[in-house]
Amino acid sequence: MSVTLADIHAAATRLAPVVRRTPLLRAPLLDALAGRRVWVKPECLQWTGSFKFRGAWSALTQLPEGTGGVLAFSSGNHAQAVAYAAQRLGREAVIVMPADAPALKIANTRAYGAEVILYDRARVDRDVLGAEIAEARGLALVPPFDHPQVIAGQGTIGLELASAARAQGITQAQVLVCCGGGGLISGIALALAHEAPDLRVHPVEPEGFDDVTKSLAAGEIIRHPLRTGLCDAIVTPAPGALTWPILQRHCGPGLVVSDRAALAAMALAFRHLKLVLEPGGAVALAASLVHRRALKGEDVIVIASGGNVDADIFARALKEESPDAFG
Amino acid sequence: MSVTLADIHAAATRLAPVVRRTPLLRAPLLDALAGRRVWVKPECLQWTGSFKFRGAWSALTQLPEGTGGVLAFSSGNHAQAVAYAAQRLGREAVIVMPADAPALKIANTRAYGAEVILYDRARVDRDVLGAEIAEARGLALVPPFDHPQVIAGQGTIGLELASAARAQGITQAQVLVCCGGGGLISGIALALAHEAPDLRVHPVEPEGFDDVTKSLAAGEIIRHPLRTGLCDAIVTPAPGALTWPILQRHCGPGLVVSDRAALAAMALAFRHLKLVLEPGGAVALAASLVHRRALKGEDVIVIASGGNVDADIFARALKEESPDAFG
Repeated sequence: MSVTLADIHAAATRLAPVVRRTPLLRAPLLDALAGRRVWVKPECLQWTGSFKFRGAWSALTQLPEGTGGVLAFSSGNHAQAVAYAAQRLGREAVIVMPADAPALKIANTRAYGAEVILYDRARVDRDVLGAEIAEARGLALVPPFDHPQVIAGQGTIGLELASAARAQGITQAQVLVCCGGGGLISGIALALAHEAPDLRVHPVEPEGFDDVTKSLAAGEIIRHPLRTGLCDAIVTPAPGALTWPILQRHCGPGLVVSDRAALAAMALAFRHLKLVLEPGGAVALAASLVHRRALKGEDVIVIASGGNVDADIFARALKEESPDAFG
Repeated sequence: MSVTLADIHAAATRLAPVVRRTPLLRAPLLDALAGRRVWVKPECLQWTGSFKFRGAWSALTQLPEGTGGVLAFSSGNHAQAVAYAAQRLGREAVIVMPADAPALKIANTRAYGAEVILYDRARVDRDVLGAEIAEARGLALVPPFDHPQVIAGQGTIGLELASAARAQGITQAQVLVCCGGGGLISGIALALAHEAPDLRVHPVEPEGFDDVTKSLAAGEIIRHPLRTGLCDAIVTPAPGALTWPILQRHCGPGLVVSDRAALAAMALAFRHLKLVLEPGGAVALAASLVHRRALKGEDVIVIASGGNVDADIFARALKEESPDAFG
């Protein structure tokens, strides 16, 4: 089972009537800090506040006939996306979430009409729990990243990027993508490999959760222990069976940033772009500053993948507004 | 001297290569709170973080031949917009700002390369000071709202709204517009009067600064004392000579909201739209909730006019996230 460019185009067709084609934003004062043009694709403005709506809609509109409700396990962004897509499509949704997920993500998932089942992240394997509930209740499982239609949905961002880059006259650029299990980046990289091969895709991860960066360097999957962190959206322990071969073929090397740099990037997005980013959604923007000397070329493209953050964390980020956070 | 639909279309042509055509955003959980669809046009995503870039660009691209530098007086959003537009057009800019303007707005205006002259809002008449400096240094004055090309530039938002409303199938709606001196709302109202006459335009003002609301009710201009407030962008004492006749002909009645409701609306925009709004940029969104029982119809359109807010005010707004702020 693999994902093809045709799958991404087919997903784009299914998404066309509903998706927000997010713009490419820039701020001159941000460019000055980064030393080049920083183009930001704000997927925080997507339905439910993250890119995850694309993959969820793509998967839910391709379920086998006779499927009833759906089940997803997620720390929050995929949860909200599946809940909202299911609500719009008139399907039941059951979402399995860790009890320590951000309060906003749990509340919103319920508000989109889903049944939320909380579990203890330290003691329970969510894959096993999810599979059990899906089996017992006859629900179709919609995995957060390792699923062809989910990857194809996220890949529609790559199609939009290729088109926007052409419109802006950007022929070469580094594309920095927040990376957890790799669904977002593998979809984007697949699309760009065909449609804009001179846009080079790099995964960005938080320190201590750099399984993809290490795996790409080692040439084999390196797992890190399952635990959570500030960047809750992207603390997956390893790339997936479907995403890993795409990552290996099309992406890298990976870039790593500190939690503090992620918070400081949230403050920059607040100040210069008027966007609300969550920590995991800000790591790519952070990398454009932390790694500004190593990056090449006049243009860098940053995926700002989500904005579902609790108020206390955001208030903390606003206090990190200090240029030395980026080294 | 008046403003015509042709002026607005001409401004749109001059703006086309540079302006961001901002989208219309919605969030299902926000709709649920408001009891109808709330369409938000996020001009905080415009260059320099507010709609003011449109009017500044429109005016600066229509200066008489032989004009050198420009001068503007502004509490901050017009300041940044004129500074940035002048920088892109290679013109000198001198900006006269009140010393108590938000620090972010002063810093950004300087960062766009303008010379900033601060004055004491309580003791100095900015119109007089601005005119003196313009005369002494041979600069062209670009007023913040009472100027045909500025109004025409802001009116391009109305053209975009008419087009977006058609695309979304919205035939009737209330359009709520943050209102200071009336440049934004008069431009929008002029455009809509021709292109979408069933979209009805209402000014929204903060309590204590409701000169336009009172003037519309009285049928004559009612001034309030010159002072500042939380919604610093829209605390002008009275509508202008050019904007007032347009307001009287096409807009009303006005709506008023408390500062607390403006802060709570900022928190809602943070939570549901992932947008950073400043207090003055959030009053229209606040009105869609405060006045939800009085508003009619299934659709309300809200102009989110700007997002240039200091971090401490934003942190304060995040603590106002309480539904009873809207009564």
